[in-house]
Amino acid sequence: MNNWKTRYAWLREFGEPAPAGTDCPFHTAEAEAEIYNRNRKEDAPRLKPVLDETLPEEAYILKSGGSEIQIKGGSKGVLYGTYAAAGSVTEKVPVPEGLNAPYWSLRMLDSWDNMDGSVERGYAGRSIWFEADRYSYDPARIRQLGRMLASVGINVLCINNVNVHVPAQDLLDGMLDETAAFADLLRPFGVRLMVSVDFSLPLQRGLVSADPLDENVCLWWKNFAERAWKAIPDLAGYLIKADSEHRPGPNTYGRTHPEGANMLARSVAPYGGVVVWRAFVYNCTQDWRDASTDRPCAAYDLYHPLDGQFDENVILQVKYGPFDFQVREPASPLFYGMKNTHLGCELQLAQEYTGQQIDLFAMPALWREIFDSVGTERIHAVAAVGNLGRDACWTGHPFAALNLYAYGRFAWNPGVNPAEIVRSWVRQTYDLPSEQEDALTDMLMKSRSAYEKYTATLGLDWMMRPETHYGPSPYGYEFDVWGTYTRADRDAVGTDRTKTGTGLTEQYPEEQKALYSDSSSCPDELLLFFHRLPYTWRMRDGRTLIQRIYDDHFEGFDEVQKMQKTLADLSLPEPDAQEAAERMNLQLLNAREWRDVINTFFYRLSGIPDEHGRKIWP
Amino acid sequence: MNNWKTRYAWLREFGEPAPAGTDCPFHTAEAEAEIYNRNRKEDAPRLKPVLDETLPEEAYILKSGGSEIQIKGGSKGVLYGTYAAAGSVTEKVPVPEGLNAPYWSLRMLDSWDNMDGSVERGYAGRSIWFEADRYSYDPARIRQLGRMLASVGINVLCINNVNVHVPAQDLLDGMLDETAAFADLLRPFGVRLMVSVDFSLPLQRGLVSADPLDENVCLWWKNFAERAWKAIPDLAGYLIKADSEHRPGPNTYGRTHPEGANMLARSVAPYGGVVVWRAFVYNCTQDWRDASTDRPCAAYDLYHPLDGQFDENVILQVKYGPFDFQVREPASPLFYGMKNTHLGCELQLAQEYTGQQIDLFAMPALWREIFDSVGTERIHAVAAVGNLGRDACWTGHPFAALNLYAYGRFAWNPGVNPAEIVRSWVRQTYDLPSEQEDALTDMLMKSRSAYEKYTATLGLDWMMRPETHYGPSPYGYEFDVWGTYTRADRDAVGTDRTKTGTGLTEQYPEEQKALYSDSSSCPDELLLFFHRLPYTWRMRDGRTLIQRIYDDHFEGFDEVQKMQKTLADLSLPEPDAQEAAERMNLQLLNAREWRDVINTFFYRLSGIPDEHGRKIWP
Repeated sequence: MNNWKTRYAWLREFGEPAPAGTDCPFHTAEAEAEIYNRNRKEDAPRLKPVLDETLPEEAYILKSGGSEIQIKGGSKGVLYGTYAAAGSVTEKVPVPEGLNAPYWSLRMLDSWDNMDGSVERGYAGRSIWFEADRYSYDPARIRQLGRMLASVGINVLCINNVNVHVPAQDLLDGMLDETAAFADLLRPFGVRLMVSVDFSLPLQRGLVSADPLDENVCLWWKNFAERAWKAIPDLAGYLIKADSEHRPGPNTYGRTHPEGANMLARSVAPYGGVVVWRAFVYNCTQDWRDASTDRPCAAYDLYHPLDGQFDENVILQVKYGPFDFQVREPASPLFYGMKNTHLGCELQLAQEYTGQQIDLFAMPALWREIFDSVGTERIHAVAAVGNLGRDACWTGHPFAALNLYAYGRFAWNPGVNPAEIVRSWVRQTYDLPSEQEDALTDMLMKSRSAYEKYTATLGLDWMMRPETHYGPSPYGYEFDVWGTYTRADRDAVGTDRTKTGTGLTEQYPEEQKALYSDSSSCPDELLLFFHRLPYTWRMRDGRTLIQRIYDDHFEGFDEVQKMQKTLADLSLPEPDAQEAAERMNLQLLNAREWRDVINTFFYRLSGIPDEHGRKIWP
Repeated sequence: MNNWKTRYAWLREFGEPAPAGTDCPFHTAEAEAEIYNRNRKEDAPRLKPVLDETLPEEAYILKSGGSEIQIKGGSKGVLYGTYAAAGSVTEKVPVPEGLNAPYWSLRMLDSWDNMDGSVERGYAGRSIWFEADRYSYDPARIRQLGRMLASVGINVLCINNVNVHVPAQDLLDGMLDETAAFADLLRPFGVRLMVSVDFSLPLQRGLVSADPLDENVCLWWKNFAERAWKAIPDLAGYLIKADSEHRPGPNTYGRTHPEGANMLARSVAPYGGVVVWRAFVYNCTQDWRDASTDRPCAAYDLYHPLDGQFDENVILQVKYGPFDFQVREPASPLFYGMKNTHLGCELQLAQEYTGQQIDLFAMPALWREIFDSVGTERIHAVAAVGNLGRDACWTGHPFAALNLYAYGRFAWNPGVNPAEIVRSWVRQTYDLPSEQEDALTDMLMKSRSAYEKYTATLGLDWMMRPETHYGPSPYGYEFDVWGTYTRADRDAVGTDRTKTGTGLTEQYPEEQKALYSDSSSCPDELLLFFHRLPYTWRMRDGRTLIQRIYDDHFEGFDEVQKMQKTLADLSLPEPDAQEAAERMNLQLLNAREWRDVINTFFYRLSGIPDEHGRKIWP
């Protein structure tokens, strides 16, 4: 536990350690202001937090007056405002005017930490708080974590993997005291805990069933909640992955998901708790021969008939796309179709499919598209799978911190402009000359497009290695059980998901249905997601489909080369400069591998050479 | 450690437990004869072992006289003869006449057991003697193991994985006493121990180098051997995997393999020890773009120039084919080209690539081909990677015991007929009516061909899943680092390994070179191993290449269906009947998956339909 060292990205005005011994966010705000005022540059204004209990709990108003910024805020808002004020000073921009309050009240970070210390899909080192099947942390580090989350307004931390591996069943049971102690550490930062719970827990505790309609089961969960909230009065609730990828759920007992979720919801309602119910349900033992079953259709087919049946304090948490955190997906049709259900939108900061915190992939533009497409009013809460670990910079790649920062900012205000968020992060993280600031901002903004070009052009997801989700394997998933097929053959590629095919387009409202159903209106980025087309098909810009595939792969690699050059010209501090350069070398190798493997794959299938005579290996 | 239970395949006349407390193979023979005589059927002859020290140590002569079979034998031969005599009686065949002596004096079983209890490529449960980083066994079980090995004449057991994982470095060091105690248990069965040793061990023990020409290193190994043989005087020697798949070796110090091997060989020579040096060396970080580097060429390129440089007590252990235990390979060119080196031939009973002890795969026919092709006189010793584990039947599938049995018989006499060996095993294992005996023998004899048809037709190896080596993944290895590419495209498939290609054929003597180089003389089974041919190429029988691929996959599946029927009609004892039936169900699923995936793969590439209109999924 000793000798750990961390460094923040965007919080450089606040030295370590984070405040200890404060008992509420307001006192934390006062302590942070004191740290800030001590560290600030001579010409910077002082921060002055003022508790104003007439304001909504999470809201704040900033007032800049000469050498001081006054932060009037509610009991949590006063802390959020303190960080916001500091950020504005660092960025050398005026403090925002008027009342600042979050768009969503639940802004969750879901940690896929296992109690053995591993992190499922973690690319930033081991768990910050678990090791060897128990809690294992330095409180000072947890307070630093709390500060980081609070600084961007994240107010719920789910502490354990949705796949509840032994002994995480004990977190609100045999280890309840330790979980309460952990909650105590984060409470002064306005962060409440959530725990991933195993739906079959009663069965493991001696009951003969976990049937949600069984009275004994209901009583068992009622008692369970009573004990949990007694120990942790501000516990946010439970996160549940049920009837998904071999996890147990209500279907095991012939019950519906609302029956399962509502039973839990009733048990936590007296304490203001919520049940976050993941809608990530599909047939994960599909037969590749079966072209009529289509995984992206599964969640809507299951949940749409259940719309209106979930209790008020159930949040049905839907991944942004109908597949699984791919580089490019349309928004999930559930967002449009579940008008009488509280929906949560699940994002993923962990770069499982998006470069694993080696390759650059700034997410704000992706989220912007999803939120624009869906309309934020259809979304009741947001969650993101975290990208944190014990690495000194917290996020593996120092630039990956951008995604955590941006997530917090989006969760607070989903209307923000992606480029502005990226620029804010750059300014708050590095003190660069303005042309370098522009260059870094621009590079990050373009990073998603580059990664998309070499890994998932035209919506061709799932061509990565099945074991790792990193690096190319164009047929790796093709004959497997996961429902993720490109069905590439010598003539054509892609899946017809219109009404002449699997019918996914029919799950969308008219506007989206019309857009996606017609190959002449379907956005290029989703063309092969919704359509099966021959290699000789003419794109709107006159290129053939196969030529577009080749072009994107050559361009993707070239863009990474340019990024490498841009990076080399930045005067970043160490060790960020070296770490970023090392990972950029790996990204370049990865982009080369993707370019060559995917181009060769389609060349072997199609037999059509590149029009520009570039090297495609035979 | 308790409650274990085993059951033998071919040793049913000998009840458990195996003899304890005997001090040499002769006394074991007497004890086994006593057990046998007590258990034997009334009309069966008694066994009478007689030590005859004028005979070679491992030889025996059987004399059948009325109600007794006299077994005259050397100090170990007397034990081998006892089991042989019992086997003849069980089989109801006359005892073999004349002097019986083994063809090879080193008949090794290499166990890939790790000290944590796992077995690399093990499909029969956990290690029989390791668990939790220490020895962990019931001595009675080890004696049963000794009996089983002795009954087929296996006289060396290498106890640990060639990849020497921590803490196996200690087996002849910190754990030397425990290793000696283990050797004591097997010595009465004529089985000597061998240990896989880490070439870099001196480095781990405080020396500044492991350079084989460094005097301190030589002295260190000399002292190491002195201690080891003092504790275990009949230790057979060391098994070494060096400069292979990331293992350290002499090349690390700019030294040759003979320099490395001979240094060790000199250290063990005073004790009659041998150094078994694995020739499994290739570039395991190959670039798939590089079509000039060809993995099957690597070992010959490396070792042929070194022929004659290895000491007498070094055995260069060569896998039977130039790849890695595939279903179909030509014999390694090293067997023909290393005339002044003691070569060992390495076989693999563990069904890593051959069905994982789920699918049936009787190996005798494969070995027969290799030995016939090479000529046994070029081979100095034999070794086989074991297929044993803690499963009650020892080998996962009860029929997989055949391969262990047959290996021992081949190692004793490589001239044996595969079908006779299989029949012997069947007769010694099950007491079936003669038509069932025929049916089982026939099914086992055909099992390899069926497996080959659905997994590796025409020499197309490496189309299995890279993670598991089980099940189809036709492009799974295609863009990876392992040098195992089919290079299938829309027109053609296979690799030109003749002199117009990678030149592997040039490593063979004239006869083989001529045979393999010409696509019109190359055996069908190796056609695409040595040649790249279009799908429309005409086979000798008039079929197109693509049609042959389809036919083999349909036939392979159909043959498994027939096997399933044959199996169901056998009156096998339980639990063998049920276990075999359960695994046959899995094999049928596997064969179906292979058939459909591979046929679809080639159909998507070639666009050519099956001439007989059978179902190929699009």
